[in-house]
Amino acid sequence: MGNTFGHLYRVTTWGESHGGGVGAVVDGCPPQISLSEKDLQHDLDRRRPGQSKIVTPRKEADRCEIFSGVFDGRTLGTPISVWVRNEDARREAYKEMETIFRPSHADYTYQAKYGIRNWQGGGRTSARETIGRVIGGSVARKMFGELAPRLSVTAFVRQVGTVVAGIDASKVDAEEVESNVVRWPDAKESEQVIRLIERVRTEGDSLGGVVECVVRGCPVGLGEPVFDRLEADLAKAVMSLPASKGFEIGSGFAGVRMRGSEHNDEFYLEGKKVRTRTNRSGGVQGGISNGEDIIFRVAFKPVATIGKAQKTVDAKGRKVELKARGRHDPCVLPRAVPMVEAMTLLVLADHYLRDRAQVGLTRK
Amino acid sequence: MGNTFGHLYRVTTWGESHGGGVGAVVDGCPPQISLSEKDLQHDLDRRRPGQSKIVTPRKEADRCEIFSGVFDGRTLGTPISVWVRNEDARREAYKEMETIFRPSHADYTYQAKYGIRNWQGGGRTSARETIGRVIGGSVARKMFGELAPRLSVTAFVRQVGTVVAGIDASKVDAEEVESNVVRWPDAKESEQVIRLIERVRTEGDSLGGVVECVVRGCPVGLGEPVFDRLEADLAKAVMSLPASKGFEIGSGFAGVRMRGSEHNDEFYLEGKKVRTRTNRSGGVQGGISNGEDIIFRVAFKPVATIGKAQKTVDAKGRKVELKARGRHDPCVLPRAVPMVEAMTLLVLADHYLRDRAQVGLTRK
Amino acid sequence: MGNTFGHLYRVTTWGESHGGGVGAVVDGCPPQISLSEKDLQHDLDRRRPGQSKIVTPRKEADRCEIFSGVFDGRTLGTPISVWVRNEDARREAYKEMETIFRPSHADYTYQAKYGIRNWQGGGRTSARETIGRVIGGSVARKMFGELAPRLSVTAFVRQVGTVVAGIDASKVDAEEVESNVVRWPDAKESEQVIRLIERVRTEGDSLGGVVECVVRGCPVGLGEPVFDRLEADLAKAVMSLPASKGFEIGSGFAGVRMRGSEHNDEFYLEGKKVRTRTNRSGGVQGGISNGEDIIFRVAFKPVATIGKAQKTVDAKGRKVELKARGRHDPCVLPRAVPMVEAMTLLVLADHYLRDRAQVGLTRK
Amino acid sequence: MGNTFGHLYRVTTWGESHGGGVGAVVDGCPPQISLSEKDLQHDLDRRRPGQSKIVTPRKEADRCEIFSGVFDGRTLGTPISVWVRNEDARREAYKEMETIFRPSHADYTYQAKYGIRNWQGGGRTSARETIGRVIGGSVARKMFGELAPRLSVTAFVRQVGTVVAGIDASKVDAEEVESNVVRWPDAKESEQVIRLIERVRTEGDSLGGVVECVVRGCPVGLGEPVFDRLEADLAKAVMSLPASKGFEIGSGFAGVRMRGSEHNDEFYLEGKKVRTRTNRSGGVQGGISNGEDIIFRVAFKPVATIGKAQKTVDAKGRKVELKARGRHDPCVLPRAVPMVEAMTLLVLADHYLRDRAQVGLTRK
Repeated sequence: MGNTFGHLYRVTTWGESHGGGVGAVVDGCPPQISLSEKDLQHDLDRRRPGQSKIVTPRKEADRCEIFSGVFDGRTLGTPISVWVRNEDARREAYKEMETIFRPSHADYTYQAKYGIRNWQGGGRTSARETIGRVIGGSVARKMFGELAPRLSVTAFVRQVGTVVAGIDASKVDAEEVESNVVRWPDAKESEQVIRLIERVRTEGDSLGGVVECVVRGCPVGLGEPVFDRLEADLAKAVMSLPASKGFEIGSGFAGVRMRGSEHNDEFYLEGKKVRTRTNRSGGVQGGISNGEDIIFRVAFKPVATIGKAQKTVDAKGRKVELKARGRHDPCVLPRAVPMVEAMTLLVLADHYLRDRAQVGLTRK
Repeated sequence: MGNTFGHLYRVTTWGESHGGGVGAVVDGCPPQISLSEKDLQHDLDRRRPGQSKIVTPRKEADRCEIFSGVFDGRTLGTPISVWVRNEDARREAYKEMETIFRPSHADYTYQAKYGIRNWQGGGRTSARETIGRVIGGSVARKMFGELAPRLSVTAFVRQVGTVVAGIDASKVDAEEVESNVVRWPDAKESEQVIRLIERVRTEGDSLGGVVECVVRGCPVGLGEPVFDRLEADLAKAVMSLPASKGFEIGSGFAGVRMRGSEHNDEFYLEGKKVRTRTNRSGGVQGGISNGEDIIFRVAFKPVATIGKAQKTVDAKGRKVELKARGRHDPCVLPRAVPMVEAMTLLVLADHYLRDRAQVGLTRK
Repeated sequence: MGNTFGHLYRVTTWGESHGGGVGAVVDGCPPQISLSEKDLQHDLDRRRPGQSKIVTPRKEADRCEIFSGVFDGRTLGTPISVWVRNEDARREAYKEMETIFRPSHADYTYQAKYGIRNWQGGGRTSARETIGRVIGGSVARKMFGELAPRLSVTAFVRQVGTVVAGIDASKVDAEEVESNVVRWPDAKESEQVIRLIERVRTEGDSLGGVVECVVRGCPVGLGEPVFDRLEADLAKAVMSLPASKGFEIGSGFAGVRMRGSEHNDEFYLEGKKVRTRTNRSGGVQGGISNGEDIIFRVAFKPVATIGKAQKTVDAKGRKVELKARGRHDPCVLPRAVPMVEAMTLLVLADHYLRDRAQVGLTRK
Repeated sequence: MGNTFGHLYRVTTWGESHGGGVGAVVDGCPPQISLSEKDLQHDLDRRRPGQSKIVTPRKEADRCEIFSGVFDGRTLGTPISVWVRNEDARREAYKEMETIFRPSHADYTYQAKYGIRNWQGGGRTSARETIGRVIGGSVARKMFGELAPRLSVTAFVRQVGTVVAGIDASKVDAEEVESNVVRWPDAKESEQVIRLIERVRTEGDSLGGVVECVVRGCPVGLGEPVFDRLEADLAKAVMSLPASKGFEIGSGFAGVRMRGSEHNDEFYLEGKKVRTRTNRSGGVQGGISNGEDIIFRVAFKPVATIGKAQKTVDAKGRKVELKARGRHDPCVLPRAVPMVEAMTLLVLADHYLRDRAQVGLTRK
């Protein structure tokens, strides 16, 4: 059941890195939303390999095809099935993965759990699986475009290795983020980050980093007590992304060093609207959105696949040395940006529909 | 639907801070597990107010009663309904909460979402709600005692304000944690933390901190691709606790500063068992437990209720000044320890049953 | 997980026939619905034993208590926990049930599945469990009273043994049904049915029958393709009631004898409203309500507990003869009426909220 | 969410009659089950149009393709995505469906609910949607072949119009059922039923009927109290099939005419096994399988699409006369047989995994 996300806006993904393809079924989308393959392709292109010099050179066009749920350019309210074909499959290139457990990969745990795995390119554990998530997120973005047009979701790279961007999240501009291949919020600084990534790649090594996400224009009232708090569902959503190791919202881990009197967000009135002067809550209070920007960060570990030689064991219980061949990202951060946005959109879409089910019509 | 957690091991909690009581229904527990009220009381006592000089003096015995699902001391496989009566309810003590939105509390968001709220003591948003979670966790602990007796879950306070414990998580001893009222892993250091909490309380202020949790003896194979990775469900579980602001597993946010070649956990063989030399993965790889200790941390913000005067607004759109009366915790960390353990146990119990459904019988 | 019903309007029931009590947690109910214990008591009284001379004389007042989710007489949007205490528990009266498998009861299957059972009064398999369902249904009825006041759900006894009421379902009057203890739709005929039940009771035997249910004023559009068709969820709902053996909607089993040209419901216009001249569809087409009366029937087998001697086996594998002592219903039908209404209300409430989540706001 | 069935063995179907295709994603299947497209094709061929002279002549090869979840001929434990391409799509052939509401079809209710529909060939409401169900059922059949090889599911046509087969369900032979195009359990009688269907087709009319299903070798213990009783989930499963109007298990509607003393199934011992002398319970007691044959029946209404002229209305509120063009089944029963088997297999697979999660390992 772990391949379905959401209760009302529900995305089921399928597919291995190698095999026929990967895809998603989006169930629960409201009807009459304008939708085409072009709408989905934009975010897929931001996710795909080969998009720039600092990501893996693997060539995949990642062209999607909508099989159902759309008629004459609008959603039907029935499941939207979307497929991306796998093109660049070379079984022999991954032959050594058949028996060797790559360090800090999922080879060993999948083998131990299932007793079988598609070892080509990581199978289901490949980042290729995130195509289905990005599709689901793009459909949600279209939905919000019609139902809550003020809502926007913008992620960006806050940190690569030890380099941290200084910008205030609420000032980040989506176009500036997309203007540079590393998706750094300050385009001027981006060149140094790109050079860092290129250097580490040359060394056969890899980098980690932090993606930050800001949701603007979120309606007040999304999220549910007690287990399905908005921040809890956001945490689950992004912690299900490959390589993520941490999540924090608002003041996060740094906030624990403050006293309550410093940390509390004072309420004030802006016209008739209740606002907070600071936003240490990160836009969520008691698990429910309060109308301020929702701001959170996700830590991604350095990519596990590296060019350097590593010691490990194989499925037959022998010590071996592994030196990765083939193509991989030296730093997953630029491609993680659309993934974080997608997962955020899935959470918001689900809670948006849940809110209008329980209280949307009685509220005002 | 947000009041139910888990797919197979499923806990539904109910109750407001003030009203008849709070409780939980635990569905899906295997039959024939030995269970009594005494088994549940232990963790409830670790959670309850008034347990020590550094928590809120509110007096609640928190005596639980099992209403169903247990017969002659063993579980039936039917829902286990457990209830704790509310005793110390003084409606008038909370009168000002009826209209005033307390900063960094959920008063405003609940009012905005539902148009109504039980303003006494925070209603559903009170930490009193966590009683149901602790009950569910204690039942899970009993279940593991019979089905996976090597598994243990131990949480402790890693940080209060700016004071950080130096101990290695894998060396923490549960008894030492319980030997001091702050649940600090190094009893000798605990006195200084207690003094800090007392001082801040005297100042009418509050503190935040970090709880760390270590799961030992977890079977290999818990967790599911792709959305229900073990770390994703753990993140959701603890981020649904009141006042939590961050989650990290294994190397977490610090790990992003490393290179892949430093960060990767090298595999080696211990007899026939596949082990890792380091544990930056935190016991989970590809979303599935690998048999190493599962180690994660949860950030809790400083308690929002403070004695100092604060500016805010009320439900009628007027500026007001609030000075909290009544009893509250200056630091939620000691009581958060059993809550984090409970949420962890819920996640593990659910995935334990899910694993044996899908692959448990075919595996070996 | 089998003790929870519904996706958005979600009822979790708990409790055994003997033990502390039985109850329900209702999650997902919209806020600000007027609700009190008195609202729930009405249907509980229609369900309870001892209500008339033709049901079991077991004395249970079945007084309910609301523990949470209601504040100052209105729902909060949080879980509504309701409890009914067990009063008339006499463990020794059921002693023989400890080892003997009663024919056509669940003693054997529970013992085989769980290896343990609460044998007192049938434990979880007792009709006492339906108290939680009736509570959930009554809350739904209150919800519809405010959100869809034209909707009404009326069940009645269509058949007892071989006696069948002749009345057209769409003409049945709820007050007339309640005017006689057997809940027969034609009060004048009810006396003969009552006499039949009394005679069969005297013989130490039991009767089966059919409950029919008519939903009037249902909004067009409830139900979802493809698995959650309205009739599929209604079928599941009532087939989960104890002793039910069959379900049919609209023309049902009799309809299979017709040709398509006779069976089809011709559409016509009543003002601007699309109506059907006949209603063989039973108010549902393609799984979605069409605005006509929803009409279905549920078959209940004759009560399994009888006074006559029966051959059976016990848990130790010995042949035994069983002669039921104690108190039981000779015919479950009169008490099944509020149960069928409750399950129908649960299905409608869930689909009502689901519909307004996905299309409710875009529709008009 | 209505397009997903099951909790642990979970099938999500997608697709409209016209559009790219139809398919299913099967999640939760245990790993290491042998599976190929050939395994799936057998039941698809039993479902497909054009298979005999008494079904619709629409030509669809219904060739399936497995895209994921299978590797080197065995399941991976990851989602199995299967697709069948639509071939015979002629948009213009259905032009009149764009505006006309066909009697006893879902055109009106879909239009009313969603405000949009794929009117070609019925869109999502077409029986073509059942391809996904049959795929899910065939995977379950393979799973049982390895995990519970004594279990078999055999459905057959019990009744067409007023012609009823006399055979005892427990004696029905699957090969004899498949030996004739109507899937009648007594091959000798099948010719007269075939002639009846052909005659009614010639008249431009249609027939209904009853499918009966027998499950042999079901393990004791499948099914859960209280809402997810095995018969409740079977009822929902088959009542979600297009054109179904009724469900009954064991004695069903006829059983209500009996007294309890006649109806009860006496227990006896066959060696150490507890058996029942009669099987009015239909293999399920208290919602849990008791090891006897599970036997139930499903009523299907006469096909709504007929050649004769019918009065109806269109989307613009005008009276119109409709005379169906194109190809359709005069009687859905022969093709409903594999659909009923598939839905039964889905329910059994889900409950099989649920049982082994909660009690499977503790039981023996």
